[in-house]
Amino acid sequence: MTLNQVTAQKVRVNLAERSYDILIGDGLLSGAGQEIAARLPGARVAIVTDSNVAAAHAKQLVQSLDLAGIASTTISIAPGERSKRFEVLQQVVDGVLSARLERGDAVIALGGGVVGDLAGFVSGIVRRGMKFVQMPTSLLAQVDSSVGGKTGINTAHGKNLIGVFQQPALVLADTQVLDTLPDREFRAGYAEVAKYGLIDRPDFFTWLERNWQAVFAGGVERVHAIAQSCQAKADMVERDEYETGDRALLNLGHTFGHALEAATGYDSARLVHGEGVAIGMALAHRFSSRLNLCSMDDTTRVEAHLRAVGLPVTLAEVPGGLPGAERLLDYIMQDKKVSRGALTFILTRGVGQSFVAKDVPSSEVLSFLQSVT
Amino acid sequence: MTLNQVTAQKVRVNLAERSYDILIGDGLLSGAGQEIAARLPGARVAIVTDSNVAAAHAKQLVQSLDLAGIASTTISIAPGERSKRFEVLQQVVDGVLSARLERGDAVIALGGGVVGDLAGFVSGIVRRGMKFVQMPTSLLAQVDSSVGGKTGINTAHGKNLIGVFQQPALVLADTQVLDTLPDREFRAGYAEVAKYGLIDRPDFFTWLERNWQAVFAGGVERVHAIAQSCQAKADMVERDEYETGDRALLNLGHTFGHALEAATGYDSARLVHGEGVAIGMALAHRFSSRLNLCSMDDTTRVEAHLRAVGLPVTLAEVPGGLPGAERLLDYIMQDKKVSRGALTFILTRGVGQSFVAKDVPSSEVLSFLQSVT
Ligand SMILES: NC(=O)c1ccc[n+]([C@@H]2O[C@H](COP(=O)([O-])OP(=O)(O)OC[C@H]3O[C@@H](n4cnc5c(N)ncnc54)[C@H](O)[C@@H]3O)[C@@H](O)[C@H]2O)c1
Ligand SMILES: NC(=O)c1ccc[n+]([C@@H]2O[C@H](COP(=O)([O-])OP(=O)(O)OC[C@H]3O[C@@H](n4cnc5c(N)ncnc54)[C@H](O)[C@@H]3O)[C@@H](O)[C@H]2O)c1
Ligand SMILES: [Zn+2]
Ligand SMILES: [Zn+2]
Repeated sequence: MTLNQVTAQKVRVNLAERSYDILIGDGLLSGAGQEIAARLPGARVAIVTDSNVAAAHAKQLVQSLDLAGIASTTISIAPGERSKRFEVLQQVVDGVLSARLERGDAVIALGGGVVGDLAGFVSGIVRRGMKFVQMPTSLLAQVDSSVGGKTGINTAHGKNLIGVFQQPALVLADTQVLDTLPDREFRAGYAEVAKYGLIDRPDFFTWLERNWQAVFAGGVERVHAIAQSCQAKADMVERDEYETGDRALLNLGHTFGHALEAATGYDSARLVHGEGVAIGMALAHRFSSRLNLCSMDDTTRVEAHLRAVGLPVTLAEVPGGLPGAERLLDYIMQDKKVSRGALTFILTRGVGQSFVAKDVPSSEVLSFLQSVT
Repeated sequence: MTLNQVTAQKVRVNLAERSYDILIGDGLLSGAGQEIAARLPGARVAIVTDSNVAAAHAKQLVQSLDLAGIASTTISIAPGERSKRFEVLQQVVDGVLSARLERGDAVIALGGGVVGDLAGFVSGIVRRGMKFVQMPTSLLAQVDSSVGGKTGINTAHGKNLIGVFQQPALVLADTQVLDTLPDREFRAGYAEVAKYGLIDRPDFFTWLERNWQAVFAGGVERVHAIAQSCQAKADMVERDEYETGDRALLNLGHTFGHALEAATGYDSARLVHGEGVAIGMALAHRFSSRLNLCSMDDTTRVEAHLRAVGLPVTLAEVPGGLPGAERLLDYIMQDKKVSRGALTFILTRGVGQSFVAKDVPSSEVLSFLQSVT
């Protein structure tokens, strides 16, 4: 074990023949080649990345692959959510085919959730499924999108409406690369970390309240928080790989969050996903309090912590203004989590006590939204 | 059981939780609504079809769905292989999303292999996987492409290079719709029927030699031949769902066949898939004879039967001329069945005794091609 791997942690995702490891630690990228050589002997790879990440970290990965004798091609896309679309999918598919990769070869996603979702989808459809490796570089990707196998792109009809379930063969999260991640993106990713506490890990939420500054500063606490988050997500995915039940809990804060993202035209200058989730989680607690499910103290506590780290918690904090309650409800109804017309919400009985509520009357949601807009 | 169902046969494909039935018989389309209502209760459907098939058979299907209380939208594409491309995929995806179908709803493929491959791919990626029903209308689709879950589209790099494994929930093959299929298409599909005999069912091949006229005439023999073919394919798929081994036997005749399709620019006026397969199977036997694996008597017997039904068996029969042996070998090397540079071929020791031969030297293939061009 080399010096920079002493803090490395491993989380196993148990999904029968689709099981895999998540490795988390400072400096892991330099050992990426060896890990792949050991797990996918003989495989060649295509690295899919975006231009921001490529500039900061691609060289190190390519060197590590070279050292392990693994031939690689790099396919770089434009950064940002707009790249999760059909035309870019087609371009990346073309890049992988041009490199003449076969079914036993691998697509590596080196980047945030955008790169991961797109590259994962590509790996799932080229030759009806190649090998796939996630090397998440944003906090959101390290704690959420790289784990669990959901991949996909957006369409005019909505976000993530096309894709496949494609579990990676390995997730390698080098926490050191987070040092180049813009602060705002780190904070946004942190919303998902807090989410795991709020879903069903009250002790983790308490730990975060006490240690978030060290997590932000990049100490061993950062590795710990990420590993705990991966473990939480892995548990959920193991219980419900194809999201037919419990996995929906991971959408805590996301029904409101997605509506806000849609209402701001997915303009990241105004709102990034994690910020929408932060407001959404605060609203989910507030809504639960209004329905007498959750104490107002818990709602206040949740808002206080999110606010402490610098995340927004109210609609008023979204720059540029939002449409009224009716229009926001329309966005919610359009969201894909609406099953056969009934509104499914993740509500909560308190910190770490979330549950899936089916058939929430839209009239209740509307009057709640009217009370907070 | 109604009168037109007396000849119906059922083949079960056993794939654990992805198991399904193939129903084969004259007039089954009129009972399609009931079958779907029973197997996918509550599902709405999108029918994907092509304009040829729509004109002849869509009305009957829609009526049957209506009778069973199943709401449907019809999405019609242009007939022909050219529709298996990214732009059309995107259009059909858009049609399914516009109909606001959800994960529990179904995409029905009503058409030949082109419609089946495209619609199956769509059903596999919209909302990360919807339900899928195959209603094959060409002989090729009824005996081959509708069974086994391979779906996909073509790219500039080659055929079927993008797609997913997506098993249908039901295959409903109404043999009566074959009455409107052009003769040439029926004959082409028959090449795949004969293929099952040649792979590992010598008795079936003998039965075909004796009964092919009744099969072409549309008697009960037609239902029998299709059911036997489905059973043969189902056995192979059960043994190797994801094509990592034995399933490759289904490619008998296809390595040469694909090269011929590529060499004729996929121009169906010159060569349709089944014709390429017929020539390919004849060549596979002839090549095996040259390698002293298979007796010349068997090769002659295979050619005689294919010729009797009106299928081509030599390169000289391809209208418009073909490139020379070197160029044909290039096309073979480009075919996706080339694994890590080694040439994998399906060779045979005689009728019904095919096997997967790995590492066939390309020099052998070249000198064989030189001997037959
Ligand atoms: N598949 C899933 O289960 C899942 C779960 C949650 C979110 N998502 C998806 O994830 C996406 C959001 O992911 P994201 O927040 O990572 O967005 P992102 O991929 O756009 O990354 C955010 C920004 O940070 C930059 N960046 C990333 N890593 C960097 C680094 N180490 N140094 C410098 N810059 C870096 C990127 O270039 C980008 O500009 C959304 O599309 C969302 O739908 C998917
Ligand atoms: N998925 C698989 O496992 C698999 C296996 C073999 C072939 N395929 C694919 O199947 C495709 C070829 O299938 P195909 O030969 O059915 O081609 P096709 O779908 O193009 O059909 C051939 C022609 O017949 C017409 N047609 C179909 N049914 C008809 C009917 N009942 N009446 C009148 N016209 C009818 C069609 O409109 C078309 O013009 C290829 O793309 C091939 O790659 C897939
Ligand atoms: Zn999220
Ligand atoms: Zn074929």
